[in-house]
Amino acid sequence: MALISIIENFKPLNDERLLRRAEKLRPVMSYKNIRPVSAFRLKDRYSSEITEIPGKDYTDVILGKGDNICLDFGDHQVSRLFLELAGKGSHPDAPAFIKLKFAETLAELSENSREYNGWVSSSWIQEEYIHADVLPAAISPQRRYAFRYLKITVIDTSPKYKLTISRVMVKTETSADDARVLPAYQGDPELNSIYRMCQRTIRNCMQDVFEDGPKRDRRLWTGDLRLQALANYATYGNNDLVKRCLYLFAGSRFPDGRVAACVFVDPEPEADDTCLYDYMLLYTAALWEYLEETGDQEALGDLYDIAQKQIDIALWTVDENGLVHGDELGTVFIDWADDLHKDAAAQGVLIYAMHYAVKLAEMRGDRKRAAKLTDRIGTLKQAAREHFWDPERACFVCDGQAALATQVWMVLAGCASEEEAAGIFERADDFSRECTMMTPYMHHYYIMALLSCGRKEQALGHIRWYWGSMVKYGFDTCPETWVPDDPSASPYGGTAVNSYCHAWSCTPVWILKKYFK
Amino acid sequence: MALISIIENFKPLNDERLLRRAEKLRPVMSYKNIRPVSAFRLKDRYSSEITEIPGKDYTDVILGKGDNICLDFGDHQVSRLFLELAGKGSHPDAPAFIKLKFAETLAELSENSREYNGWVSSSWIQEEYIHADVLPAAISPQRRYAFRYLKITVIDTSPKYKLTISRVMVKTETSADDARVLPAYQGDPELNSIYRMCQRTIRNCMQDVFEDGPKRDRRLWTGDLRLQALANYATYGNNDLVKRCLYLFAGSRFPDGRVAACVFVDPEPEADDTCLYDYMLLYTAALWEYLEETGDQEALGDLYDIAQKQIDIALWTVDENGLVHGDELGTVFIDWADDLHKDAAAQGVLIYAMHYAVKLAEMRGDRKRAAKLTDRIGTLKQAAREHFWDPERACFVCDGQAALATQVWMVLAGCASEEEAAGIFERADDFSRECTMMTPYMHHYYIMALLSCGRKEQALGHIRWYWGSMVKYGFDTCPETWVPDDPSASPYGGTAVNSYCHAWSCTPVWILKKYFK
Repeated sequence: MALISIIENFKPLNDERLLRRAEKLRPVMSYKNIRPVSAFRLKDRYSSEITEIPGKDYTDVILGKGDNICLDFGDHQVSRLFLELAGKGSHPDAPAFIKLKFAETLAELSENSREYNGWVSSSWIQEEYIHADVLPAAISPQRRYAFRYLKITVIDTSPKYKLTISRVMVKTETSADDARVLPAYQGDPELNSIYRMCQRTIRNCMQDVFEDGPKRDRRLWTGDLRLQALANYATYGNNDLVKRCLYLFAGSRFPDGRVAACVFVDPEPEADDTCLYDYMLLYTAALWEYLEETGDQEALGDLYDIAQKQIDIALWTVDENGLVHGDELGTVFIDWADDLHKDAAAQGVLIYAMHYAVKLAEMRGDRKRAAKLTDRIGTLKQAAREHFWDPERACFVCDGQAALATQVWMVLAGCASEEEAAGIFERADDFSRECTMMTPYMHHYYIMALLSCGRKEQALGHIRWYWGSMVKYGFDTCPETWVPDDPSASPYGGTAVNSYCHAWSCTPVWILKKYFK
Repeated sequence: MALISIIENFKPLNDERLLRRAEKLRPVMSYKNIRPVSAFRLKDRYSSEITEIPGKDYTDVILGKGDNICLDFGDHQVSRLFLELAGKGSHPDAPAFIKLKFAETLAELSENSREYNGWVSSSWIQEEYIHADVLPAAISPQRRYAFRYLKITVIDTSPKYKLTISRVMVKTETSADDARVLPAYQGDPELNSIYRMCQRTIRNCMQDVFEDGPKRDRRLWTGDLRLQALANYATYGNNDLVKRCLYLFAGSRFPDGRVAACVFVDPEPEADDTCLYDYMLLYTAALWEYLEETGDQEALGDLYDIAQKQIDIALWTVDENGLVHGDELGTVFIDWADDLHKDAAAQGVLIYAMHYAVKLAEMRGDRKRAAKLTDRIGTLKQAAREHFWDPERACFVCDGQAALATQVWMVLAGCASEEEAAGIFERADDFSRECTMMTPYMHHYYIMALLSCGRKEQALGHIRWYWGSMVKYGFDTCPETWVPDDPSASPYGGTAVNSYCHAWSCTPVWILKKYFK
């Protein structure tokens, strides 16, 4: 997730008690040293043509001005770099000047970052320029990177000497416990590949908080958290990390009580001045699932009112026709699809979240609230049917558009009968053509909608096709956006800032365990 | 000085005892915190057009993508940087990516370093690219820089925030003792300005060793040391620093005993595989002047044989006509002037150095050696007269060229009578036009030649004109090369790597004290 909202003089509402609790839940990190498994060169500066390095021993390679060497660490890593540079030839008489480029994918490695001109900051592009005044030199940038490949380009040495890379090591960081034995799909290589890709993704996004992506934005988003938490329950089970994130969102909110779309952790926890309507509402689902998983009474006590408040705030915007106006509260996200008409989906998200609010109320023993919400769900569903159900097309239509995302959220909200839903999802491809779903995040909810009406086979087939296509494309981890027909799709105006390890994309690890084991 | 020579499999002759002695003489450094005195902006990226910052408080300036701010530290500094960056606007949601450019002169600040394509490494260009992941951020690059101006360019932030520079400090480094009260020419503003420029230069080149230039190459060269030592005697009097450098040259030499043109200090002392014929010989002068200044008997004992050896090695190359062939030993430098015919000057340097070898022999009580050398000087002078004196033109001519540098070295060698020398230097401008002297290093020897034949007024006039033109041009310290008619002259194929604080250029600080007080 990345989204830009600016509110002048924004002052979040901070609850120091909740923030202190979040601070105490800061995870223990584990570290692992990894060395490159192979080395190659890129033929030209921005060429993707590769020359393998014979013998594969990168320490033998002598690098002069303009030369590059690329190291492959075998899998996606979130780590810091240690590198030793040595001079070769006469005593170095000028500094060595090198460029490091870290890339999650091979294609990224040969991209010219100067050509990127999108709306997300180019400062996310993982490149460093480093001078070494004295050789041999130990190079250890203070920053953390997300990558599988490292390209080292010699910008200049001097005619008197060249360079060798005498040693490289990266130290990976995660708050996932690697000692945990994770299940695999040994009988099914295709699902096993998907499973491993998803598991690597959640592992590498588990840091001080759940990061949306360790390359970019490296931080906590509400809607992402809901899916990250599910992936975590099915794998590493670091439930305190989920709790920490729930408390961070509760601890720093909008002045009117809304849960922000994102909370910054450094230098101090602070809500971003960005509200995403659907993200705010999905806090209820994330909380309920955490409580189901853990039975944590402290969290229920601390966070119940805050979760319920999100529903109440959204209900303020419901008009006399029973339709919600999510954009009065913030951007309605749903998916990275510019052409998606979102009113129906927004209505669906509210009803969906209210179902979780009812479950929370029941868990809390707040029967009055549960009854009131259930009643209200009825009127909202009715309004949705009246406005969005098209009996002729036998599907939901929003402003003339019958997008698959619209069907998904209407079905998840319970606005269609089982038969209607079946009829809709038999024609899923048609709706998908009407408006393409861009993100694995949206595809997750599509799978959930299929499962909600018993279409297990279709759900599994979709996982095999959609996530399988990522595996076939060569991803080690799940990308943030993915359209199999259009691998270079980017919501940001350029693939240079695309994140190729994004935790909202790895939910098959949870779906497979919960529904297909 | 910068020069490239490469000898395959070069193994220097190291004398560990001498190197240990040099190590023990490592100077105590002094540090001083300096803050910027004013701030301005450059209108465009490579424009030299300046916009003053009103109120001059740089901390008020808000910097967005592409903006720059330039800080003026009031004088030339050799220092490390401490900088605090803060975000302005919403909470920063992406790293700040900035570029720092350190410049000794205002012109350098707006130079496009990508256009530099010379033979000295571009890695000397003082530019850094820095990401700050969390704001506020303390930026403190580990490297040392030589500069008066610092340009900070914001490459990117994000639409959510801009930057302010909340605090800047630089910590200067020198092995000169700033507490020492230095003489000034208060009655003569012109000489006083020259004096201050020269004194700042020697101070900023006094580091762990005498550096030729703290921007580039930041190290010890023999011929430079001879002049640096003179400037030091007249100002900061850090004689142990001179001794350390003499021991470093003696401690790591060419396998045949030659003193290298340059010794590297880090990571371990090691002779460069570069021999400059004239530099090797000038070690004798540097040693004799050090002993004269200090009366250091330990150094005389340790270094006498090594100095004499340089003469003997050079004498091996003298042919049957009594002419030296310096290029058999290494490059004959003399000056950065490609068109200079150097045979006569090379002959002159040898004879000149032999005069110092005689003085050393006398100091040591080695009368036999003194007599032998004196005898040999006679034959070398005679050969020089025969080959280079043109009775018709009444000057020295080398391969048809009557360069001023040739006259200077022949006069310094004592190959001209006082009258002949007077006749020559009355026509100095003619010889100068025949081949322009490029460096203050060469101009130093010109001044010495004038003084050697009693032409004090001409010498002082030349200081006022030549070094005065540097002051008028706006230099805070003395540049490495300087041709008043051609300020952008560079021996390196581009001004981007020119050094504008070069200690071989600052000898007026010594000349004025010794000859004009």
